[in-house]
Amino acid sequence: MGKQDIEQDEMKKLPNKEENFIDWLNEVLLRTDVLDYRYNLKGCGVWKGYGFKLRKNILSILRNLLNNTPVPHEEYMFPLLVPEPQFMKEAEHVKGFENEVYWVTHGGLTELDIKLALRPTSETAIYPMFALWIRSHTDLPLKTYQIVNTFRWEGKNTRPMLRVREITTFKEAHTVHATAEDTEQQIAEAVKLYSNHFNTLGISYVVNKRPKWDTFPGADYSIAFDAIMPANHKTLQIGTVHNLGQNFAKTFDITFENLEKERQYVYQTCYGISERGIAAPIALHGDDRGLVLPPNIAPIQIVIVPIIFKNKEELVQEEVKKIVKILRRHFTVVVDDRGIKPGSKFFHWEEKGVPIRIEIGPQDVEKRQITIVRRDTGEKFTRSSATTKEIVQQIKSLFKQIFEEMALKVAEDTKSRILVTEDINEAYQWLEDGKGIAEIPFCGSQECASDIEKRVDGLRFLGTPVRYLNYIEKPSKRMKYGEMNQFTREKKEIFCPVCSKKVNQYWTIARSW
Amino acid sequence: MGKQDIEQDEMKKLPNKEENFIDWLNEVLLRTDVLDYRYNLKGCGVWKGYGFKLRKNILSILRNLLNNTPVPHEEYMFPLLVPEPQFMKEAEHVKGFENEVYWVTHGGLTELDIKLALRPTSETAIYPMFALWIRSHTDLPLKTYQIVNTFRWEGKNTRPMLRVREITTFKEAHTVHATAEDTEQQIAEAVKLYSNHFNTLGISYVVNKRPKWDTFPGADYSIAFDAIMPANHKTLQIGTVHNLGQNFAKTFDITFENLEKERQYVYQTCYGISERGIAAPIALHGDDRGLVLPPNIAPIQIVIVPIIFKNKEELVQEEVKKIVKILRRHFTVVVDDRGIKPGSKFFHWEEKGVPIRIEIGPQDVEKRQITIVRRDTGEKFTRSSATTKEIVQQIKSLFKQIFEEMALKVAEDTKSRILVTEDINEAYQWLEDGKGIAEIPFCGSQECASDIEKRVDGLRFLGTPVRYLNYIEKPSKRMKYGEMNQFTREKKEIFCPVCSKKVNQYWTIARSW
Repeated sequence: MGKQDIEQDEMKKLPNKEENFIDWLNEVLLRTDVLDYRYNLKGCGVWKGYGFKLRKNILSILRNLLNNTPVPHEEYMFPLLVPEPQFMKEAEHVKGFENEVYWVTHGGLTELDIKLALRPTSETAIYPMFALWIRSHTDLPLKTYQIVNTFRWEGKNTRPMLRVREITTFKEAHTVHATAEDTEQQIAEAVKLYSNHFNTLGISYVVNKRPKWDTFPGADYSIAFDAIMPANHKTLQIGTVHNLGQNFAKTFDITFENLEKERQYVYQTCYGISERGIAAPIALHGDDRGLVLPPNIAPIQIVIVPIIFKNKEELVQEEVKKIVKILRRHFTVVVDDRGIKPGSKFFHWEEKGVPIRIEIGPQDVEKRQITIVRRDTGEKFTRSSATTKEIVQQIKSLFKQIFEEMALKVAEDTKSRILVTEDINEAYQWLEDGKGIAEIPFCGSQECASDIEKRVDGLRFLGTPVRYLNYIEKPSKRMKYGEMNQFTREKKEIFCPVCSKKVNQYWTIARSW
Repeated sequence: MGKQDIEQDEMKKLPNKEENFIDWLNEVLLRTDVLDYRYNLKGCGVWKGYGFKLRKNILSILRNLLNNTPVPHEEYMFPLLVPEPQFMKEAEHVKGFENEVYWVTHGGLTELDIKLALRPTSETAIYPMFALWIRSHTDLPLKTYQIVNTFRWEGKNTRPMLRVREITTFKEAHTVHATAEDTEQQIAEAVKLYSNHFNTLGISYVVNKRPKWDTFPGADYSIAFDAIMPANHKTLQIGTVHNLGQNFAKTFDITFENLEKERQYVYQTCYGISERGIAAPIALHGDDRGLVLPPNIAPIQIVIVPIIFKNKEELVQEEVKKIVKILRRHFTVVVDDRGIKPGSKFFHWEEKGVPIRIEIGPQDVEKRQITIVRRDTGEKFTRSSATTKEIVQQIKSLFKQIFEEMALKVAEDTKSRILVTEDINEAYQWLEDGKGIAEIPFCGSQECASDIEKRVDGLRFLGTPVRYLNYIEKPSKRMKYGEMNQFTREKKEIFCPVCSKKVNQYWTIARSW
């Protein structure tokens, strides 16, 4: 294959993101070396070099947040295989997962005495160990997390990153507490931490307390983060936080001796984010030309393309060398000096979502400037390259500006997709047309919910928005992109559209991935 | 449980490392919060917070080496599940693993059409993807690695970190090349890289080209790193490097178009290090009081114990605060100000292997000094704390000295365990008595080897030492602790002890874990 063929092949157009989101996602992941799903088992993908770095950058933000809470979370690593009797101990939990657990039945050519489950999530692997470790109130709180692969047998259609069989990147935190109050506070910390994490990725989301009938199997209640995806504006659950109460403690006999020397069951929480937390920024920031990555998570932050004219090669190359040396001290920089057309280079690095391209030609050298092109807006402008300090400072503040504008764009898009209405038929139409999600007055009964869920294909209740709870007390500065969850409504008399009962809450309904 | 009970419980003696190595290992891992093997499935352990940090530090050394070779290795992540037909493709490979592969046969309540293997190693998962990615000579070399969990069904007795069912930490590199020569060079790079890695952990090892009959299934040849463990001085294979030639390329149809536009099969290598690479420094540096960790991998590098006397509390606390602030800029520091006896504190941090303890009492404050106790030697001495610069510089050079002395000690121990002899009976006795390994003149035939292997329980051939090969050309400075592999012998006439053929090589024999 010649160089020209490669250029042509590489410059093929992507599917339209707003028309065919899944094709766009699959194609962009494949072409930018993020994830390759052409593995011989559906729903299993390969993280390639570029994707692995993106994953690492995002996980490093998450790890930093977890490691730096007032009582830090500590990173652990638990076994993948769960013996059947241990997996089967928590009845609710089993019921929730029995249709999607992979079972190991043979070791070599021998049938095993005891079947082994591949963890679909790790409660049953972890909690028997907690029972060994916790003896006294001085052992509490215990705050652990792990980032591991988990498995769900998906009979239905798999989707790249969104519905997979091997969840390659499951960050699950598990905490243990002495009192119900401490546990509630932990839930608040977790919700705040996840908000911070997603805000740092520049994405928006809604936070809802899930309905009773859609609570994590074995939990008292669940709070979930959902992002609104492109195209038909279905929601994607990107994070969940569960208050487990004493349910698992009783099953796995996790007790501690309190100050009064009495044995008591502990209280627990768990909360998780999977690779959907990586899919969301890809999906929400990307465009029809490829990835658009916020500077703080981009594996490559700057690409420099020398613009070569005859007899001016040396001039430009000298300048490039100088600028690269300065920038590498602060940023991840690639110089593309391949012998192909600049247009092909631009296309390639735009597809990969590199936040800015710097072009340096003879004119730039003369004028002591660099030409900058923003990936997110396509804007092209020059900046002085007169002093080292100036260059670095300009790019730092440009990155800040890019991040803020990207985040704001997603926040506005997301906001425009949330219809608040007392007219249930308007809500149905909104969902039917794939325009977004809706908030409707609702009584909270499962019976009324079933009636509503039948009306639009795939409609489900996401639950009650967190503004009715106390989990996010005071929005910090960093949380401004999540603020849509905190607004309050003017007081109106509102009624459940099914049973006509007078109610005091809106509930969120949506179609979901 | 009262504070006194805890102190008593914590101060129990460890098993003797030189008498009962496995008990020592299990107990030290458990008590220092490195790994807890009391999981409900034999051979599966939990990495706890302290252990996870140690693991992270060691992997970070390995990642740095891999990411910084002249052509860098890139980190990838491949699926865990391998469909049966794909796993069964390479006949040699299958034969090597068929007795130890875990099989997934059910998804939920449904029997799967195609059984899925849990990777025991990832060649069969990775190479079909290589076949998709590689088209032209410009795609070569391709150098990838991943750090993942792999699985081996062990019917035999499992051993903490040494023989496990879930290998939690398998770093496997896979490279692809255009020519046999490039492949040989890659093998040399890998051997050097692993030497550097193990040298950086301060451990010693022997490097042997494995006998033909003990080559990795599907490889042309294998080179292995073995460390000599405590107690009965069995060897532990801690790293392997395989030249796969074109064997897998032919099975998985991995081809490229060369400069002459002809399609050719690629050449491949793979090389791996498991958590045995973490077990080795623990085993070789540790002593009967617990872990002894080199400063460059210790999760906590310094513990400060304030020595409090009545009426001098404030004086000491002020000084501790000042010193901690200085040290934290350069080192990982913990201050132990718990209200328990200093003796209990000393015991605790010594067991955890913290390289130095700093004691600060009223006398130290007065004399503007700190009292330092080395974990590896127990030596106690004072150093001036007059200036910030001085304190930091002294500890940096102390850490360098500690590392070098620890590494030298292991190197000398290892050297003393290698018997070079032409008297086969002396070699048998040496192995029989658990004194170490032996190098004997040998012809290389499997028939003669069988005869020798029968003579001592567990005796096996590790192969020919690398000094007969060209893989380590010029020992760099950092490699001095591995130098035992490069010495040459005076020329003697030597003979195979079985067939009496005249030979020109010594071979290594050992008993192994």
